[in-house]
Amino acid sequence: GHGSNVQGLETTATFIPETDEFEIHSPSMTASKWWAGGLGRTANHAIVVARLILKGEDFGTHNFIVQIRSMEDHKPLKGITIGDIGPKYGYETIDNGFMLFDHVRIPRSALLARFSQVSRDGTYTRPPSSKLSYSTMVFVRARIVADAGRSLARGVTITTRYSAVRRQFRDPVASASDPFFAEGQPKKGIETAVLDYPIQWRRIALQLSTAYALHFASVVVTEMYSDLVARLKKGDLSTLPEVHAATSGLKSLSTDMAAAGLEDLRRACGGHGYSEVSGFPQFIANFLPNVTYEGDNYLLTQQTTRYLLKTFRALKKTPSTKLASLSTSYLAAAAARTPDSPAPRWAVRLSTDLLNSSLVRAAFAHRAGRLVSELATDLDSGSQTWTDSLPDAHRVSRAHCQLLLVDAFAHALESPAAKKLDAGSRAVLARLGDLFALSTLEAEMGEFVADGFVSYQQAKMVRGAVRDALKELRPNAVALVDAWGFSDYLLDSALGRADGKVYETIFEWVSREPLNNGENYPVVKGYETLYKPLFNAKPALSKL
Amino acid sequence: GHGSNVQGLETTATFIPETDEFEIHSPSMTASKWWAGGLGRTANHAIVVARLILKGEDFGTHNFIVQIRSMEDHKPLKGITIGDIGPKYGYETIDNGFMLFDHVRIPRSALLARFSQVSRDGTYTRPPSSKLSYSTMVFVRARIVADAGRSLARGVTITTRYSAVRRQFRDPVASASDPFFAEGQPKKGIETAVLDYPIQWRRIALQLSTAYALHFASVVVTEMYSDLVARLKKGDLSTLPEVHAATSGLKSLSTDMAAAGLEDLRRACGGHGYSEVSGFPQFIANFLPNVTYEGDNYLLTQQTTRYLLKTFRALKKTPSTKLASLSTSYLAAAAARTPDSPAPRWAVRLSTDLLNSSLVRAAFAHRAGRLVSELATDLDSGSQTWTDSLPDAHRVSRAHCQLLLVDAFAHALESPAAKKLDAGSRAVLARLGDLFALSTLEAEMGEFVADGFVSYQQAKMVRGAVRDALKELRPNAVALVDAWGFSDYLLDSALGRADGKVYETIFEWVSREPLNNGENYPVVKGYETLYKPLFNAKPALSKL
Ligand SMILES: Cc1cc2nc3c(=O)[nH]c(=O)nc-3n(C[C@H](O)[C@H](O)[C@H](O)COP(=O)(O)OP(=O)(O)OC[C@H]3O[C@@H](n4cnc5c(N)ncnc54)[C@H](O)[C@@H]3O)c2cc1C
Ligand SMILES: Cc1cc2nc3c(=O)[nH]c(=O)nc-3n(C[C@H](O)[C@H](O)[C@H](O)COP(=O)(O)OP(=O)(O)OC[C@H]3O[C@@H](n4cnc5c(N)ncnc54)[C@H](O)[C@@H]3O)c2cc1C
Repeated sequence: GHGSNVQGLETTATFIPETDEFEIHSPSMTASKWWAGGLGRTANHAIVVARLILKGEDFGTHNFIVQIRSMEDHKPLKGITIGDIGPKYGYETIDNGFMLFDHVRIPRSALLARFSQVSRDGTYTRPPSSKLSYSTMVFVRARIVADAGRSLARGVTITTRYSAVRRQFRDPVASASDPFFAEGQPKKGIETAVLDYPIQWRRIALQLSTAYALHFASVVVTEMYSDLVARLKKGDLSTLPEVHAATSGLKSLSTDMAAAGLEDLRRACGGHGYSEVSGFPQFIANFLPNVTYEGDNYLLTQQTTRYLLKTFRALKKTPSTKLASLSTSYLAAAAARTPDSPAPRWAVRLSTDLLNSSLVRAAFAHRAGRLVSELATDLDSGSQTWTDSLPDAHRVSRAHCQLLLVDAFAHALESPAAKKLDAGSRAVLARLGDLFALSTLEAEMGEFVADGFVSYQQAKMVRGAVRDALKELRPNAVALVDAWGFSDYLLDSALGRADGKVYETIFEWVSREPLNNGENYPVVKGYETLYKPLFNAKPALSKL
Repeated sequence: GHGSNVQGLETTATFIPETDEFEIHSPSMTASKWWAGGLGRTANHAIVVARLILKGEDFGTHNFIVQIRSMEDHKPLKGITIGDIGPKYGYETIDNGFMLFDHVRIPRSALLARFSQVSRDGTYTRPPSSKLSYSTMVFVRARIVADAGRSLARGVTITTRYSAVRRQFRDPVASASDPFFAEGQPKKGIETAVLDYPIQWRRIALQLSTAYALHFASVVVTEMYSDLVARLKKGDLSTLPEVHAATSGLKSLSTDMAAAGLEDLRRACGGHGYSEVSGFPQFIANFLPNVTYEGDNYLLTQQTTRYLLKTFRALKKTPSTKLASLSTSYLAAAAARTPDSPAPRWAVRLSTDLLNSSLVRAAFAHRAGRLVSELATDLDSGSQTWTDSLPDAHRVSRAHCQLLLVDAFAHALESPAAKKLDAGSRAVLARLGDLFALSTLEAEMGEFVADGFVSYQQAKMVRGAVRDALKELRPNAVALVDAWGFSDYLLDSALGRADGKVYETIFEWVSREPLNNGENYPVVKGYETLYKPLFNAKPALSKL
């Protein structure tokens, strides 16, 4: 029954001093654990999370390693009920299962005891910090951010390539630089490549820039994690809260973005995006659990915002508070503002100012700071409870993480790898970074103008700048997806083939379908018995 | 090859005067029609769209009825190649197919000739208007709007009911009015119903109000269609452009909203939303083609915006131009404005003004008018081409159709059916209408504040008003979904059961799965041959 609220688990592990064992027991049907991958029909051992009970006292959830099936005949051991949970959106090949325990005994050594221990006489040793187990969550969430970026990149590759091949309508304006449209006149039978329609390219390019941003963010969180592990080894927990906050919020934001992006990219393939030949349907369905598991995306953002509020309040009280890293330094500026401070305004004057990435960053920093500050005021004045403010907390986390993404892009452009690129490629990447930041600003404009920081005039300039960046980037569309180097095998898409042979491949794949072959061809199996009789059927008349 | 660009079809129907026949021919592989439902293995006859060729002259696309399979043995007739297009996201039971014609002869009478005819000697009679066939599109799109509303309502029913049953964490603030939390103290083992978390209720309630809005819009477009048909019978085509524009834009907006809403509702069920027991996965996958077929959602909005621009330009030239209906009357105000007119401001002063639905409507009307007017200026001044402006055209259609939805809600509240309701129920419906309009305004705030029509202060009031409406509506959550009267059979969801027996039903459904029964239970078939050998396998050593 408990996915989100792990602390609320019903299953207990009671220490039995007489036999030096724990007894695992699930008191009710709702205590059954659902969804564990590989449990349904495969696993012989499981890590079970249960509430540790010592001498009648509840010490909260702990992890135990439990043999659940016989190594001889694979039957579930006595007292253990296991089932497969049945069909799902995707994940077809994974046997997610459920499990219930009826007074199952395991040895005391089955407690995973790196941090907390139970001695022979049932005495408990606490972990040095209750937050140590967070580092595993940090690791998993950092991996998910990387997966979100990679998945989106895979989708963009498919849709970009297909859009360069797919032609629909003749539009000499859109096809201005298409060699098949010499002097504005299409060659016979030639139509406009849909990639040349600015509205199609806009949809694709926003996902393209997002995929790069997520990839760069995954580099940053991976570095954060390595640094964290090195510190933890030395007993230094100082960066744990910030890293936990950043990875929680980024896991939520990145998987929301990738899931929405993949679906939009699928739709941008028109009807064929709905076919499995596109490579999208199963792929999207398999990606979707990322928004739910390892922390539901709405719940996770509470972690991020709690941390930001705590830091903000500390800075408000003691402006000299040392921050764990740069990514929250904007909170100091927000905390330093008082009701009498002059209202800050965005320093952008000319549209060329929008090419200055630190000016653009300043808008993200200001907006995140304002949202944290407003929420703190609401909560501290008692005008909102924490429970009521969760929609705002979600917005705050989102704003913070969008800033992290903008920073990650900038960080990547300054990286040794980027410096090794030729000037032309670096310029294209920088322009893609502009597009990411400016189009995010455009999409969230309501929050940037809400306190007058960004003016109407500036908002209009941002829209124009997005349009300019899109135009400039168009010639590099295919190169920017080729750069990821996905193989045709991995893409598994007739639409996304590197050689552009879309239609030949569709025909080939489809011709292998069982409905188009053998006993089903040219007439489907079952025609004689099920379908043909309908032709000769007499209308059913009543006997009246 | 042609889904969107029907005019670009390659398949021809050439009249052969010698035999009084048409010859249907597809010149290339890309001329094959893909996706036709029921074609793959079932249909014996098809409506084929092909370009009519008379004496070497191309008269554009026309419809023909063609026998494609034998009535005796079901084999495709000579010259006709048919296949099934293979697996898709959903639609598993529909045999979408593809077809190619190799010089296939059909009688002259096979031309569907209500409007355009070909005589024995090959003379062509034009239809009275080239737009007459639009009325079928109007009909189909009106049906899709209704389907979008119904589908979203079905999803909201599932998630609302499940959220009333699903409990996670103990939060006495959220559970303030829960009888299981007497005086803020939960009864033993009781946690907070997730429906009581304001963030969960917010997500659900926005979809709830949208589902009602789409339902009311479908009533309006159905009335529009009936009126249109009555007029067309009398030869009156005057309302066709407006009705075509409204249904095109609403088809696009309503299916976008329902698709996004259903996915969010699925996620709001947590992990179980991913299981087929929720009733969501297949249902969503089957709904998704609505955003693509019967007019791709991005292309469709061009139709709407073209009509609005035309009307706006006419009003600009001749302010007394008679409008086909009230829904575009805001264009007159927009057209009357000149660069010297004082900038209009929203008349909302107090938060109670936001209960005045005509004031709220005024903001939608102003925003739609402004966007049309700005686009017209851009196009007419030559600062943007139509092709470049498609992203803006999409925004314009969206703004217009959101106004139509707000109006449809208001219209429903004034309908005879609503007047028969008791005062309490009507008040709840009106509040739901407020929520729909205000939360839409909140979500699109960037466009409302962009010219200063809505001020920062007013924007803040809107956010507060949304919060208030949500609080007031919470007690009626379950009643508002029960009102639709979906049967358990139709919902096909263990989570959405009317009796709340969620967990019992999940266990029952899952226990019927083949993996949990018979030859697969308790050990899965194939264990002995495939899986067990792995336990005894020796590591593969090289021979070196
Ligand atoms: C494909 C898949 C694979 C999985 N694999 C595994 C696995 O291998 N091992 C494993 O242990 N688990 C696994 N899971 C389970 C997964 O971790 C949980 O489903 C997830 O944590 C969400 O928990 P839940 O289902 O209980 O959602 P719930 O908590 O029931 O969420 C329902 C809704 O309530 C809301 N909500 C809940 N609490 C609050 C609150 N306090 N405040 C506001 N809103 C709230 C949520 O936001 C959500 O909208 C898997 C799930 C899936 C879908
Ligand atoms: C499940 C399903 C069932 C179907 N059933 C049927 C059926 O029974 N009968 C039938 O006839 N058809 C059917 N269809 C086909 C459907 O009508 C088409 O797929 C749909 O009209 C889109 O056309 P397309 O696939 O050619 O998309 P495309 O036109 O190739 O679209 C690809 C992309 O290009 C963009 N684009 C195209 N032209 C332009 C332009 N001029 N300007 C800007 N952007 C542009 C689109 O917005 C889209 O993003 C079905 C499709 C599906 C998915």
